[in-house]
Amino acid sequence: MSGDHGPSVCVPGALEVLREETDLEIVLVGEPGALEPHLAVLSPADRSRVRIQVASQVVGMDEPPREAIRRKKDSSLRRALDLVASGEAKACVSSGNTGALMSTAHFVLGMLEGIERPAIISALPATGGHTCMLDLGANVSATVEQLVQFAIMGAVVAADFFGRERPRVGLLNIGREDIKGNEIVKAAHQRLLASRLEYIGYVEGNDICTGSVDVVVTDGFTGNIALKAMEGIAHMIAGAVREEFTASTARSLGALAAGPALTSLKKRLDPRRYNGASMVGLAGVVIKSHGGADATAFAHAVRVGVLEAQNGVPAQISAQLQAQAA
Amino acid sequence: MSGDHGPSVCVPGALEVLREETDLEIVLVGEPGALEPHLAVLSPADRSRVRIQVASQVVGMDEPPREAIRRKKDSSLRRALDLVASGEAKACVSSGNTGALMSTAHFVLGMLEGIERPAIISALPATGGHTCMLDLGANVSATVEQLVQFAIMGAVVAADFFGRERPRVGLLNIGREDIKGNEIVKAAHQRLLASRLEYIGYVEGNDICTGSVDVVVTDGFTGNIALKAMEGIAHMIAGAVREEFTASTARSLGALAAGPALTSLKKRLDPRRYNGASMVGLAGVVIKSHGGADATAFAHAVRVGVLEAQNGVPAQISAQLQAQAA
Repeated sequence: MSGDHGPSVCVPGALEVLREETDLEIVLVGEPGALEPHLAVLSPADRSRVRIQVASQVVGMDEPPREAIRRKKDSSLRRALDLVASGEAKACVSSGNTGALMSTAHFVLGMLEGIERPAIISALPATGGHTCMLDLGANVSATVEQLVQFAIMGAVVAADFFGRERPRVGLLNIGREDIKGNEIVKAAHQRLLASRLEYIGYVEGNDICTGSVDVVVTDGFTGNIALKAMEGIAHMIAGAVREEFTASTARSLGALAAGPALTSLKKRLDPRRYNGASMVGLAGVVIKSHGGADATAFAHAVRVGVLEAQNGVPAQISAQLQAQAA
Repeated sequence: MSGDHGPSVCVPGALEVLREETDLEIVLVGEPGALEPHLAVLSPADRSRVRIQVASQVVGMDEPPREAIRRKKDSSLRRALDLVASGEAKACVSSGNTGALMSTAHFVLGMLEGIERPAIISALPATGGHTCMLDLGANVSATVEQLVQFAIMGAVVAADFFGRERPRVGLLNIGREDIKGNEIVKAAHQRLLASRLEYIGYVEGNDICTGSVDVVVTDGFTGNIALKAMEGIAHMIAGAVREEFTASTARSLGALAAGPALTSLKKRLDPRRYNGASMVGLAGVVIKSHGGADATAFAHAVRVGVLEAQNGVPAQISAQLQAQAA
C-alpha cells in the first residue's frame, strides 16, 4: 500500500467495490497493522472476501525503479504483482510509484508474446462519452511497429470499455492531410491503413475530446504531455469558476441559485471518474491509480481492474495480435 | 485577404487597432473591390492611414505551400510578405493557410542569421496571467540545437510580452527528474542548464497553465498536439457549462442569477484574447491569426504584430543569440 495517502484511502476505496461486486475477492497487500483497522466496518460475510497478504517494505514514490526491483523484494508493490504472476490474483491495482510499478510488472509478469513494449491507456472525458488514449507515458518514444501494437491493444481495451465491436482508432498527428507528421507517424499511418482495425486516419489534439474517435494512438512522450496539458487547463478553468463565483456576496448568491447546474457540472467533469490507467501489453492486468487519488477515485481504478480481469484483456490482446497478423 | 471569413472580418479587426494606435498605418492587401466598402466607416484622418495594395490571387486554405510559392506570386499572402521584405511594412498579419504562410515567409524573408528553423509561439492562458509556448507546429521535430534556439527566441518574446527582463524558461518533458525524457530532451536540458537563460529545468504538461513558468519550450509535434488538446478540452468544458445551464427552466433562471460570474468567466477564458501566434526566427515579423477568427480575435492578432514590430523582435533575437554565444 503506497500512493500519497496509503491504506486510509486505498482500503475504503477497495471496500466500496467489494460491496458492489458480490463475487469479488480482494487481497490487501501491506502491513497488517495498518490495514486491519479499516476492515472493522465490514459485515462478516464481506470480511470473508478480504484477505491480507503481508509485505514488510514500501517502495517510495520517488525511488528509482531499478532499486525497487533489486532491494524491495518484500514490498507491497512486488508482492501484489507476485500474486498476479502466480494466478492467485487476477489484477493488481496500485497508486504507488508509476515507474517502479511498470518496471516491476515488466520484470515479474513479462510481456505478452509478440508485444514489444507495454503502454499506459486510460479513458478520458469526451463530448457525449469517453475516448481511450495510449501511450500516456510508459515509453519516451515509439517505433512504427510499437505504434501499430498500441493501436491493436487500444482497440481491445476500447471494445470492452465501450461495448463496441470495432472501435474507431485514430493516430495523433499535427494535421489530417497525408503529408503531415514525422516519418514514424507517416509509416505507422500506412501500416494502420492496411490493418484490419477500424482505422479512421490522423486525428488532432482537439479530437481527443470531441467523441469522434474511440482510441487515440500516440507515443508516450506526446501522450503524457497532452494528458497533463489537458489536466492543467481543466484545473485552471475549475479554479477560475471557483474564483468568479466567490468574488462577492452577490456572486455567491448567484452560485447558490446556479447550484444544481454547478453541482451537475462538477460531477460530470470530476477527474476521479477517470482514475485508473491500465498498463497493457503485460502478461497480466495491472492498473495504476493516481498517487493523489481519494477513496472514490481509487474505487474507480479498482473497477477498471475488475472489468479488465473479467474480460481477460491480456488474452484478448494476444488473440487480436494473431488475428491482425493472420 | 484569406482565412475562413476574408475581408469582412480582417478589415474591421484591423481598423479596431487603427483607432487605438494613432501612429499606426495599415496596408490592406487584396482585391480593392472587396476591401474598399469596409473603409467607408473611417474618418478622413483615419482613412489617410490606410492604404490598399492590390493582389489578384488568393492562396486556398488547403493549398500545398510549394504550389503557393510557385504559382501564386500575386497572392495577398505573398504581396504582404513582399512589403515586409522591402521594409514598406514592419509586420505581416494573416489568417490564411499556415503552411503556405510559413513557407512563403521563409522563402521571401529568409531566416535570421544563426537560426536554423522558424518556430510558432503564442501566449496561452495561465493562472494569474499567461505562458508563452513554442514550437506550436512549424516543425514536425526538433534537434537539440533547435530546442536551445527556441528557448532563446521564446525568452525574447516573453520578455517583451511580460515586461520581465529574465523570463523563466522551462523545457517540456514527461517528468521533472534528470533521468526522464528522450535523448534529445536530455541533451537540450544540459545545454540550457549551461546557458545564460533563466532556465528553471523540466516542466510537465500541467505546468503550461500554472503560471510557474513564462516560456515553455518543446518541438512542434508535441507543442501543436498539447495546444490543440487544451483547446479541445476547454471547448468541451464550455459546451458542458452551456448544457448544464440550459437543461431546464430552473437552470436557466439559475444562469440568470449567476450572470455576472458567468459573463466574467467567459470573458476571462475567451480564446479570442489569445489569438495571434508569432512566427519567430524569420527576418521579419509575421503573425498568424486563427483561420476562424472573428474581428475581435483578428484585432488581437494585429496588436501582437504591432507590439513585435515596435519592439523589433527579430533584431532582439539576433542580439540575444550573439549574447548567448559570447
